[in-house]
Amino acid sequence: MSDPRTRPRQLPERVSDDFEAACAILDQALVAHVGFCDGDQPYVLPMASARVGHDLILHGAVAGRLLTRLAEGVEVCVGVTLLDGLVLSRAAFGHSMNYRSVMLFGRAVEVTDPGTKAQLAHALVEHIVPGRMADTRPPDDRELAATRLLRLPIETFSVKQRSGPPQDAAKDMASTTWCGEIPLHQVAGDPVPDPAMPGDPAVPAYAKRYRR
Amino acid sequence: MSDPRTRPRQLPERVSDDFEAACAILDQALVAHVGFCDGDQPYVLPMASARVGHDLILHGAVAGRLLTRLAEGVEVCVGVTLLDGLVLSRAAFGHSMNYRSVMLFGRAVEVTDPGTKAQLAHALVEHIVPGRMADTRPPDDRELAATRLLRLPIETFSVKQRSGPPQDAAKDMASTTWCGEIPLHQVAGDPVPDPAMPGDPAVPAYAKRYRR
Repeated sequence: MSDPRTRPRQLPERVSDDFEAACAILDQALVAHVGFCDGDQPYVLPMASARVGHDLILHGAVAGRLLTRLAEGVEVCVGVTLLDGLVLSRAAFGHSMNYRSVMLFGRAVEVTDPGTKAQLAHALVEHIVPGRMADTRPPDDRELAATRLLRLPIETFSVKQRSGPPQDAAKDMASTTWCGEIPLHQVAGDPVPDPAMPGDPAVPAYAKRYRR
Repeated sequence: MSDPRTRPRQLPERVSDDFEAACAILDQALVAHVGFCDGDQPYVLPMASARVGHDLILHGAVAGRLLTRLAEGVEVCVGVTLLDGLVLSRAAFGHSMNYRSVMLFGRAVEVTDPGTKAQLAHALVEHIVPGRMADTRPPDDRELAATRLLRLPIETFSVKQRSGPPQDAAKDMASTTWCGEIPLHQVAGDPVPDPAMPGDPAVPAYAKRYRR
């Protein structure tokens, strides 16, 4: 949805409002930075998030003061950023990053129906570690009651990305310095078993070969 | 500095106000999420940042509307998050992430002195790719004039972190499901040369062996 908040002023060629592009970024990301105002005071909270259909799902403890504020339906801005690489240019000025990011605006709505909460809690775990829910105890009524679940409609957003080599000024193009991109990836290491486990169960495939 | 904004309500054992701990996180991070309010409207912008002494340095184009707002000295909240791993527990409810994060509050101050701007621009590039400034053309007067540089004092902040295995309820400890941590790391791939380079200069060591 176009909106003054999402209309690009700078480098509009890097910006789109494509829903599928936004979903691809939200689906790969593990952490969202959720911003809101309490009077003049901004807060930015890192949160695990998961997209379910046309909503971004956020959650936290019912007792949490800042999440309570979100549940009141204040305006929210969520920033989700995937860093793809560092761009080394001929001039210091042209150094940049390759990234894919979403800036999402709206008001969160609290989900209170226990059945829907259970479904969304399931989706959150499966978003972060696909396959994991088959091996865990689902939340009981007390745990669901202690969890606040919010859905933020993915309606007003912008997608911003940069990829490719540096863009230097014509006057610098004869420079013989090395320039290009250093790609960055998030990778998983060998799973670390909890020493409190009874016995030595096999590491499940979804943990052994975790990829994002 | 202790402050109602940084006083933990939830899980206080995960929170500290240690300056050195904050610096270690800020120095490893490449991206900060910068939040501020424009009336009731929150914004969260991903930005490259660098710590220089007791300040966090932010920058962007002078023409940028949102950065102009920051330069006016509005209240800012910066979230910086390093994701260290995924925590797989016995119960869905106990799934978590291991992370180190800083939440920094304050008002940014614009740096206008050209000499100081040149020093801070240098520090930003060196923060992101240590060693790079020896190989690039430093900013000229026009480029410095087109760059807005802001410093945000690192005074009012909280450091929040989690590490280690899952913490399950006693009733779940006999579970035979695998549980533990999937560590996550940001790694660099092979540098990708800019096809527009004249000749084939050697890849510098700081790009070939980039580590964060």
